[in-house]
Amino acid sequence: MGMYRAGIDLGGTNMKAGIVDERQKIVLEDSVPTKAKRPYQEVVADMAKLVKGLLQNTGIAENELSGVGIGSPGTIDARRGEVVFSNNFGWEDVPLVAEMQQYFSCPVKVSNDANCAALGEVKAGAAKEIKNAILLTLGTGVGGGVILDGRVFEGAHAGGSELGHTSLIFGGELCTCGRRGCVEAYVSATALIRDAKRAAEQNPASRLNELCGNDLSNMNGKIPFDAAEAGDAAAKEVVENYLIYLGETVANFVNIFRPEVVLLSGGVCNQGDKLTAPVSAYIQKKCFAGEKAFVPPVRCAVLGNSAGIIGAANLV
Amino acid sequence: MGMYRAGIDLGGTNMKAGIVDERQKIVLEDSVPTKAKRPYQEVVADMAKLVKGLLQNTGIAENELSGVGIGSPGTIDARRGEVVFSNNFGWEDVPLVAEMQQYFSCPVKVSNDANCAALGEVKAGAAKEIKNAILLTLGTGVGGGVILDGRVFEGAHAGGSELGHTSLIFGGELCTCGRRGCVEAYVSATALIRDAKRAAEQNPASRLNELCGNDLSNMNGKIPFDAAEAGDAAAKEVVENYLIYLGETVANFVNIFRPEVVLLSGGVCNQGDKLTAPVSAYIQKKCFAGEKAFVPPVRCAVLGNSAGIIGAANLV
Repeated sequence: MGMYRAGIDLGGTNMKAGIVDERQKIVLEDSVPTKAKRPYQEVVADMAKLVKGLLQNTGIAENELSGVGIGSPGTIDARRGEVVFSNNFGWEDVPLVAEMQQYFSCPVKVSNDANCAALGEVKAGAAKEIKNAILLTLGTGVGGGVILDGRVFEGAHAGGSELGHTSLIFGGELCTCGRRGCVEAYVSATALIRDAKRAAEQNPASRLNELCGNDLSNMNGKIPFDAAEAGDAAAKEVVENYLIYLGETVANFVNIFRPEVVLLSGGVCNQGDKLTAPVSAYIQKKCFAGEKAFVPPVRCAVLGNSAGIIGAANLV
Repeated sequence: MGMYRAGIDLGGTNMKAGIVDERQKIVLEDSVPTKAKRPYQEVVADMAKLVKGLLQNTGIAENELSGVGIGSPGTIDARRGEVVFSNNFGWEDVPLVAEMQQYFSCPVKVSNDANCAALGEVKAGAAKEIKNAILLTLGTGVGGGVILDGRVFEGAHAGGSELGHTSLIFGGELCTCGRRGCVEAYVSATALIRDAKRAAEQNPASRLNELCGNDLSNMNGKIPFDAAEAGDAAAKEVVENYLIYLGETVANFVNIFRPEVVLLSGGVCNQGDKLTAPVSAYIQKKCFAGEKAFVPPVRCAVLGNSAGIIGAANLV
């Protein structure tokens, strides 16, 4: 009974599922398009089919599965097993767990996708063996995952752990959440790209323009780092500001949670030390009680897409 | 054995102690001057004497005491029972619990004073019967207390739960912690008084000047509210800004912790509904997922100075 768990990373574009063993290895994984804008019952049916297909292809019996975990975008009520709200999916108050439970006799659980990514890294990745960690996903938006004593911190109600939706610059850039100046509006990949585009526009001679073939719609999160490294002044300013925004953000969450490690994930993590070293140096100076208190290391996540699957599997 | 606990609120000016019974009532309390700038051994000796005096005066035997809790300012390592750093006391790495343990055979524990205030309100005050709450102390500085599942959240290392030292306005007013733009630099009583003084200086005809007898050193946190209520435009602006700063702050912590209730304490809470109603209205609009998610009520703490004693007693 129960040597395996299934983890599902429900994305806006694709849903990925994997069978995870007791050593936190993904035995087999698969993915299919989510086709987000359709009734949740159809999405859930496809998730169930995906998992059952994996069981068939691995020869693992359904009664060897001790649980199915789902990482979902949006505002999740983990206790009730519901998606309270997801803009991507156009869902409101969707009983995701109850629906999925119709296909499986083992326990089914759901949490926010960033929480699952954090849990995955704690169980098998960059924070393995560590029980208190926070993760910021620096992507289209900024997700936050908080692991306390080895478990996902959900908050007392749905909509906790939204680390991306806290003030960084009061009254600043408009955020997707409707407020201004949120962390997400400054440290997401989207924000970095926005700032790089602006710098390119304001500095026609900047290498930023050249590196995107003089078409700013080609801008990405790598170009400003590359241009800065090549000595471009406008790009340097964009990168320096980005690193300060990120440093301020991380200092805030250290002061709040004082975790053992801070993890960053997303494409910008391809920068490796160029990202983590300056942020580490920044928080050493800025965290409360400075050198008199413990300041955690800042690391890039290492599991990539697997983090969500492994984390979801560890919900159950 | 152990029907009572002792709680100590170790302040920079006075140390207060109380014997707390099983119904969370303070049977008897007393206080003496702390005389902060002296060796910690002397301060601890006075704390022990204070508690033993209370035992004597209540006729409670020392073996009826199940524990002694201490709420201390500064950066506390609750696990080790140490004050890592306290600016007020000039302490570094002080083994407060070990020292106090020399005087008592029952368990001794220590936590940050704001944590104790939060725990007191959860056990016996404005958040009684509630297991997940956050408290902001709006005083000289801004302390933060986070209660998760009925217990103080300490962070994995000393220096967690410092809610006052998170960004509100990047690069803004200098904070006592060395950073700029922290919550503390905008929503503390000190910040409110600073802003009221500035407004009074810039508006010589403002009632703000009159209400402090044309001596700005008399400015306090009540005067701007009084002047605003009397229709003074400069004071109105000060109060409106303060309420927005506080609203932003509370929205941040709701998005992070999504607690069942948010508590505010400190002298500015004498404003009651004039403080909590606009902040509640603000966070209803600004919290992540807005009306689709639970937005907690904002309440003023009710226990006053007793919160620290009752909270400290509940550490053990």
